[in-house]
Amino acid sequence: MQMSRREVLGTISGVLVGSALTGVNMAFSREAAVQDGYWVPHKLDAEQAAAFAYENHFYKGYGCCYGAFQGIVGMMARKYGAPYDTFPMHMMEVGKSGISEWGTICGALLGAVSAWALFWGRADRDPMVDELFTWYELASLPGYKPKKGLAFDGDLPASVPASVLCHPSVSKWCYEHGIDMNSKQRSERCARVTGTVTHRAVAIMNAKIDKAGFAVLGPGASRTACGACHSPDGESDILKGKMECKACHSGALADVFNDHP
Amino acid sequence: MQMSRREVLGTISGVLVGSALTGVNMAFSREAAVQDGYWVPHKLDAEQAAAFAYENHFYKGYGCCYGAFQGIVGMMARKYGAPYDTFPMHMMEVGKSGISEWGTICGALLGAVSAWALFWGRADRDPMVDELFTWYELASLPGYKPKKGLAFDGDLPASVPASVLCHPSVSKWCYEHGIDMNSKQRSERCARVTGTVTHRAVAIMNAKIDKAGFAVLGPGASRTACGACHSPDGESDILKGKMECKACHSGALADVFNDHP
Repeated sequence: MQMSRREVLGTISGVLVGSALTGVNMAFSREAAVQDGYWVPHKLDAEQAAAFAYENHFYKGYGCCYGAFQGIVGMMARKYGAPYDTFPMHMMEVGKSGISEWGTICGALLGAVSAWALFWGRADRDPMVDELFTWYELASLPGYKPKKGLAFDGDLPASVPASVLCHPSVSKWCYEHGIDMNSKQRSERCARVTGTVTHRAVAIMNAKIDKAGFAVLGPGASRTACGACHSPDGESDILKGKMECKACHSGALADVFNDHP
Repeated sequence: MQMSRREVLGTISGVLVGSALTGVNMAFSREAAVQDGYWVPHKLDAEQAAAFAYENHFYKGYGCCYGAFQGIVGMMARKYGAPYDTFPMHMMEVGKSGISEWGTICGALLGAVSAWALFWGRADRDPMVDELFTWYELASLPGYKPKKGLAFDGDLPASVPASVLCHPSVSKWCYEHGIDMNSKQRSERCARVTGTVTHRAVAIMNAKIDKAGFAVLGPGASRTACGACHSPDGESDILKGKMECKACHSGALADVFNDHP
C-alpha cells in the first residue's frame, strides 16, 4: 500500500532534516519527470538515503527490499512528489529475506536495482548492477551503523558474503560469528546491510547522473577461469550468469552430503 | 515505460480474443480496486495469461520477468484499467536473465510473485510462493508451447531445474541437452518457461481468489534433513532460506575446483 504522509513521517526518527522534509518541490513538473518513458532520477544524499532505508526495513516488517527501494524512490517521492509517490510501495515487500524467506537474491540488492530500473534501461543499468553486485560479493558487511539500533543496539561483526544470494550471505555471517539466524542480532545485521547497500547504490546512481563514471570491478578470478571454457567461444557454452563460481562450487560446504558432521 | 495501447496491441499476434481486447470494464471502479491498501486481484484465464507472458518476453527484449508480470498485471490492465494500468511496467525488465544477466532468481518467478505482492501481504503470499517455487524446482520445463515460436519454432527438450535460480536452471538444461546457452533454442526455452510459470502462477492465484485452496508441496528431502539441525531448535541455527540444498551442496558439480576436467 502507499504510505500516507503521516505514515512516512512516522518512520523517520529525527535522522532526516532539511530539504527532504520541507515538502515537495513544486517547480519540478510531472512532464520533466518522465523522459522517453523512463522516470528521471535525482541525486540523493547517500547518508540520508541509507538512514531512510534502514528505518524503512522495519516498517510493518516489510524488510530489506522494501527498505532499499524506499531509500531511493521513497526519498525522491518526499522531495519531488510525482511520479515517485505514485509507485505502489507495498509491492517491494516481495524481496523480503530473498523473496518470501527463500534466500535467493539479497533483498536489499533487489530493492536498489529495481529502483534503478525505473530510471534506466538495461544498456545503462547493467554496468551499474555489475558494480553493485561485485562490490557486494567482496564487501565486509554490514558497514552502516545507525545512531540507535532498532532491533539490536550495539556493535555487530562483519563478514564478506562472497555471494549476492541471501542464503549464503546470511548463513556465512551466522556461521562465522556463532550468531543464530533467528536472533535480533541477525535481524539487525540485515537492516544494516540494507542501509549499506543503499548507500553504495546511491553513490553509483549519483555518479551515473553526473556522468562522472564509476568503477566497475572486474569479474572474480573463478568467473574468469571458468569463463575461459564456458563461453560462446569456448568448448562448453552452458554458463548462464555472473555470480562468483566458488561460492557454491568449491570448498568444504560444496559436498556436505558426502563430507559433513 | 508504460506501453501505449498501440504498443500493447502490437505485441499481440492473434492469441488473445474476446473480453481481453474489448476494452476496459468501466463498471469496475477505482475505489473497488484498492482495498486496505492492496490492489484487488482478478481471476484470469491461465492459457491467455501464459500466451501474453510468452509474447511480452520478446517485447523490446525486456525478457522473462517483464513477460510474467505482464501476463498477470498487464492482463488485468487490459481488462480492468486502473490501477493495474498505472504501474510503470518497464521497471520489470529488472529481472531479465536473473537480474541483469547475473543468473540469480529465475526472472519469470520474480515477475509472477512481484505481481502477487501488489495483491497480498506476506502472510497470504508466502504459502503461494512456497507452492510456485517448490513446483518449479521439481517441474519438467518448459511445458508451454506457443502456436508459433518467436525465437525458435519447433519442439524443445525439457529438464527439471532442481533450483529456482536462473543460473542452474538454464545451465542444467543446456548441459543435459547439449544446447548452447547463447542460442535461439535457449532463448526460446526461457520464453516458454515464462509462459509455463505464468500459467502455474495464475492457477494458484485463481485458487487463492476462489478460497479453493491450493496444494503446497512439502519441502524437499534434503531441506527436511538439513533442517533437523539447521533450525531454531537445532544445534546450528544458521540456515536462511528454503531452496533445495542438494542443488548446490552435493554431486559432481559441487567441488569442480578439485574434480573437474
